[in-house]
Amino acid sequence: MTEDTRPLVLSCPLPRTLDLIFSEENLKRLHARYRIVETTDEALPGLPDAVLAEARYIIGQPPVSEETLARLKSLKSVLNVESNLLNNMPYDTVFARGIHVLTTGQVFAVPVAELGLAMALNLARGVIDADLDFREGRELWGGDGNRTARLLTGADVGIVGYGDLGKALHRVLTGFRPRIRVYDPWIPEAVLKDAGVEPAGLETVMRESDFVFVVAAVTSENRAFLGEAGFGMMRRGAAFILLSRADVVDFDALLKAVGSGHIVAASDVWPEEPLPAGHPARRMTGFVRSAHRAGALDVAFKKMGEMVLDDMEFMDRGLPPVRLRRAERETVARMRSKPVSVN
Amino acid sequence: MTEDTRPLVLSCPLPRTLDLIFSEENLKRLHARYRIVETTDEALPGLPDAVLAEARYIIGQPPVSEETLARLKSLKSVLNVESNLLNNMPYDTVFARGIHVLTTGQVFAVPVAELGLAMALNLARGVIDADLDFREGRELWGGDGNRTARLLTGADVGIVGYGDLGKALHRVLTGFRPRIRVYDPWIPEAVLKDAGVEPAGLETVMRESDFVFVVAAVTSENRAFLGEAGFGMMRRGAAFILLSRADVVDFDALLKAVGSGHIVAASDVWPEEPLPAGHPARRMTGFVRSAHRAGALDVAFKKMGEMVLDDMEFMDRGLPPVRLRRAERETVARMRSKPVSVN
Amino acid sequence: MTEDTRPLVLSCPLPRTLDLIFSEENLKRLHARYRIVETTDEALPGLPDAVLAEARYIIGQPPVSEETLARLKSLKSVLNVESNLLNNMPYDTVFARGIHVLTTGQVFAVPVAELGLAMALNLARGVIDADLDFREGRELWGGDGNRTARLLTGADVGIVGYGDLGKALHRVLTGFRPRIRVYDPWIPEAVLKDAGVEPAGLETVMRESDFVFVVAAVTSENRAFLGEAGFGMMRRGAAFILLSRADVVDFDALLKAVGSGHIVAASDVWPEEPLPAGHPARRMTGFVRSAHRAGALDVAFKKMGEMVLDDMEFMDRGLPPVRLRRAERETVARMRSKPVSVN
Amino acid sequence: MTEDTRPLVLSCPLPRTLDLIFSEENLKRLHARYRIVETTDEALPGLPDAVLAEARYIIGQPPVSEETLARLKSLKSVLNVESNLLNNMPYDTVFARGIHVLTTGQVFAVPVAELGLAMALNLARGVIDADLDFREGRELWGGDGNRTARLLTGADVGIVGYGDLGKALHRVLTGFRPRIRVYDPWIPEAVLKDAGVEPAGLETVMRESDFVFVVAAVTSENRAFLGEAGFGMMRRGAAFILLSRADVVDFDALLKAVGSGHIVAASDVWPEEPLPAGHPARRMTGFVRSAHRAGALDVAFKKMGEMVLDDMEFMDRGLPPVRLRRAERETVARMRSKPVSVN
Repeated sequence: MTEDTRPLVLSCPLPRTLDLIFSEENLKRLHARYRIVETTDEALPGLPDAVLAEARYIIGQPPVSEETLARLKSLKSVLNVESNLLNNMPYDTVFARGIHVLTTGQVFAVPVAELGLAMALNLARGVIDADLDFREGRELWGGDGNRTARLLTGADVGIVGYGDLGKALHRVLTGFRPRIRVYDPWIPEAVLKDAGVEPAGLETVMRESDFVFVVAAVTSENRAFLGEAGFGMMRRGAAFILLSRADVVDFDALLKAVGSGHIVAASDVWPEEPLPAGHPARRMTGFVRSAHRAGALDVAFKKMGEMVLDDMEFMDRGLPPVRLRRAERETVARMRSKPVSVN
Repeated sequence: MTEDTRPLVLSCPLPRTLDLIFSEENLKRLHARYRIVETTDEALPGLPDAVLAEARYIIGQPPVSEETLARLKSLKSVLNVESNLLNNMPYDTVFARGIHVLTTGQVFAVPVAELGLAMALNLARGVIDADLDFREGRELWGGDGNRTARLLTGADVGIVGYGDLGKALHRVLTGFRPRIRVYDPWIPEAVLKDAGVEPAGLETVMRESDFVFVVAAVTSENRAFLGEAGFGMMRRGAAFILLSRADVVDFDALLKAVGSGHIVAASDVWPEEPLPAGHPARRMTGFVRSAHRAGALDVAFKKMGEMVLDDMEFMDRGLPPVRLRRAERETVARMRSKPVSVN
Repeated sequence: MTEDTRPLVLSCPLPRTLDLIFSEENLKRLHARYRIVETTDEALPGLPDAVLAEARYIIGQPPVSEETLARLKSLKSVLNVESNLLNNMPYDTVFARGIHVLTTGQVFAVPVAELGLAMALNLARGVIDADLDFREGRELWGGDGNRTARLLTGADVGIVGYGDLGKALHRVLTGFRPRIRVYDPWIPEAVLKDAGVEPAGLETVMRESDFVFVVAAVTSENRAFLGEAGFGMMRRGAAFILLSRADVVDFDALLKAVGSGHIVAASDVWPEEPLPAGHPARRMTGFVRSAHRAGALDVAFKKMGEMVLDDMEFMDRGLPPVRLRRAERETVARMRSKPVSVN
Repeated sequence: MTEDTRPLVLSCPLPRTLDLIFSEENLKRLHARYRIVETTDEALPGLPDAVLAEARYIIGQPPVSEETLARLKSLKSVLNVESNLLNNMPYDTVFARGIHVLTTGQVFAVPVAELGLAMALNLARGVIDADLDFREGRELWGGDGNRTARLLTGADVGIVGYGDLGKALHRVLTGFRPRIRVYDPWIPEAVLKDAGVEPAGLETVMRESDFVFVVAAVTSENRAFLGEAGFGMMRRGAAFILLSRADVVDFDALLKAVGSGHIVAASDVWPEEPLPAGHPARRMTGFVRSAHRAGALDVAFKKMGEMVLDDMEFMDRGLPPVRLRRAERETVARMRSKPVSVN
């Protein structure tokens, strides 16, 4: 190992694999530039001191004890390619040492936003049932099939959460010229205004929207914050589209609101995944279903690898990372999304 | 009739009705400002000379003979609220007299564009079958359900026809930052460039697109101009979305291209409407179906009435109409779309 | 002439010349495609019958009598490259025959808009006097030089007239995210809203703007419609930028409003051109001056030629012109701008 | 002090003052929410232990020794309202403790961008000299005054540095639809592409631009990196606009390039400020001068205060700051801009 001067990277990206997140070209770029030590969450602490001492980056999110961290003398960054943060390392020490904990979830923002928009349009125009009816020979022609159809253009849109996904959603909505109200208590009003949306309270967002998109991350504080009261405030016939995590919603209340015909809804995320066979959401009308597949596109995973490489190269140059999101000392403990077990 | 100085309007808007195209408020505005003589295509020539002589506007598109036209001494405009032009009046005389023949089809542009985008996203992500599978309990979770999924963001998009609908489509695509190539032989290249799209030949559009949207009007010259050769040129797995009229496509060739798995497709328009019960398109996979309902939204019809009123008021002021599209002397004879019989 | 089948064009473009309006490449394209008969306004009626009978296009705006018009049997279009319409032909007959009278003034829209924006920024930041002071060694550094400086970003902007120039101005203002109110009685409110501006009365525009841009054409009805009352309504320190024609403004009232320090102003157009030597506007502070040079850029003239060629080629194909603006039967008589005598 | 639970803020904002950076309303908000201890850079270390121990924020950028830092037990953030970072505190300890060092320079981005655009338009159109000529009665009318005039619309634009100011410049350029190439070695290419600009090498930017804007911060590595070679590569007649710091340019070479007529230029920053009386730049033609006043607008200072308040309130809630820019451990030592001594 003495003569190989390439920086050393510990790789334990499960449930991802290097092949999943790096394109063929980027995999070459990775190996040309770095020595990769493939390991696992379990095996990592047992690696020789010399290896740990030399490791500059970890791709993955292994549990790291204070003791192991002390042995990782050259560590500059933990690049979490799963994307949800676990509370499995001594973050105080990590941050004090200036080790960047980087997350990659933003690669899913565009794919999720596109599916969210598809859901909104499908709800607005009854596209799915119209296609089924056409298959079955019971389609309605022209205006007869449009009794409840409406436009997204010029509509009142509410977005709950204005992180990467909220921004991506805003972007794909641009051409529809909607009036967008955003509820996000973690972002100052001036920042939202500057982004071209209207800051609003949660109640206003629920009350005044034709379409509500929920893209808020789960934290220790917002579990099930959207429930019966919120759905009851919504405009009759409005659409509720859930794209982040099921835990932010009282799912039973959501199903009740849709079942009663008060609102229509779509969801990519579920209280249990996979959802039990007989779950009522499976056949409910006024509901568009997606099996947690909004983000998991190959193109998103490959972008993850590209960002990982770009940021490692920046850190190699003594610069801070610029593409991936950094975990923050203040908020790392509040993040509570369950990691995924399948890609 | 002597003391009522409101301008006189002949109304024969079938298949539309005044209630369909005017909102309650606009209906009041119409009646406050104009004397409305409700008539029909058949009855119009039999109206008294005095009535015809005084008529300033016709709402509808009745057949008009040279003789009747001569009796319509004050006629300023024929406001066609069906939207497809018939060859049923002596256009030479009409244009020589400076009578504006106005069409209202542009009100359908935004609704059709929104449905077209929904179709594109549904094809790209397999949304409809994923929802069906979920209903039936055979859904695939996460990346397993995304084997053929792809993004619209950054894709190569082709648009055939850059009229009102092409522009509306361009607008709703904005946020996806696509590279858009347009084939439209009726528009100078400089105009397309100025609009922010790339002018291209039809072959290039077919060859180099991930998504092809067909929004060209039917003319006497372009019947079935998209056929086997064109579909054969398309990228494997690309999406073909037909939104204007079935006649511009060789429909059998389209079904063959989809049936073979070479491309996926969506259509709102059909060679026969309603489509026969056993038509193969009804159950074909890789196909999204809509029963000519893309445009016929209530909000579109109501906008039609608003535009009719705005332009009549402008013409009352001695100004040319500005909201509706004028038929052109040069092209009126080339237009060949079948009028609709249901709204 | 019998064997040359190229369409015949009569050319009398003064004060322009073919060299001014056609790039070298377009001049070749012109001559390759058309037989050009160079003539003058005076000589045209004296051309042989055979020539007049064959002429398809006139580049220029010669006086044409009924008699001459009758001899111009094949005439399809008069392409006015000066850009202001004269009342020098029997327009009723012209329009009845379907001859397109085309104007080219829109080529000046972007150059004028850019200068208008420069004027606005110069007024907002005192750029010109700051540069002069710097030359003279009396400049003020940092914030000391910014006592009255303000931003255009986020400002209230008023635009009087929303034709080609108003739209070009709107476009160059985009990045400043202003609130734009438009007064234009010739455009329906819905059209303005759809363009993303707020329709407003003239008084509101004057009262509520930090910057007022006047880009309205002169008509028989709006001479000096902006006078003492209007300037008096403006916000203290607001900027008034005149870009269309001096005749729409009471110039003495404007000078008084600037002289008193109530507003600041800029103008590209003047009651007399050239302006007399001792005119008070020449040395007034709070005033930015331009000698009717906002539009007359070589690049604009060359674009004129390109549009002329594009539209002639479209008309050759039996299509209506699409790039140049058509004179309208209803409004041709109201247009009253003085033609220019120098380019 | 025992009963006042408002967080304690040490204030030493020179050369700013609290009145400069806080609007009347925000000053009230500040005092309502915080106990302000007004101090100075010199006096701060002499404050009682109890005061230092309780201080949560410092508004200003006082020199802080390790010892003083140890006494600032509750310090969460240093809010630098001058905006240039000095190397006057033990940054390693500061970062290890998670104290946010925040800079406010981004408030100047929009004002500077607007002036930069004014400069570009003035150079493109000769606005300043045209106004002077008009004052003196020697103005040229119409096209005669436009021999070298050109458009910004559609031009090739180069931007050197894509930080806050580069982005603000990009934004105000939007409506001109330029082709923008950016040189910024501190930003990955993918980030630039995603922002809608083309990443390019410095040489390409210099060679291929009609307008070059320099908005790069000075670092220890880029002193005078734009010199004779770079100016020599520029297109004849192209415009060079310097907006960041004079030190990035070899100023003599710049003056030579302008003096020779090869390029035109504008600058807001100077090798010496104030510039000596007889400096050749003062009367050079083809040069637009501004006395370091591009950013120092009252509205910018007031925004600074707003951002300071927003971020203090976020940190009070246990959240990270989101509006101000954080100094980075990796780059804090490279920053070398001289602080300003006047506002």
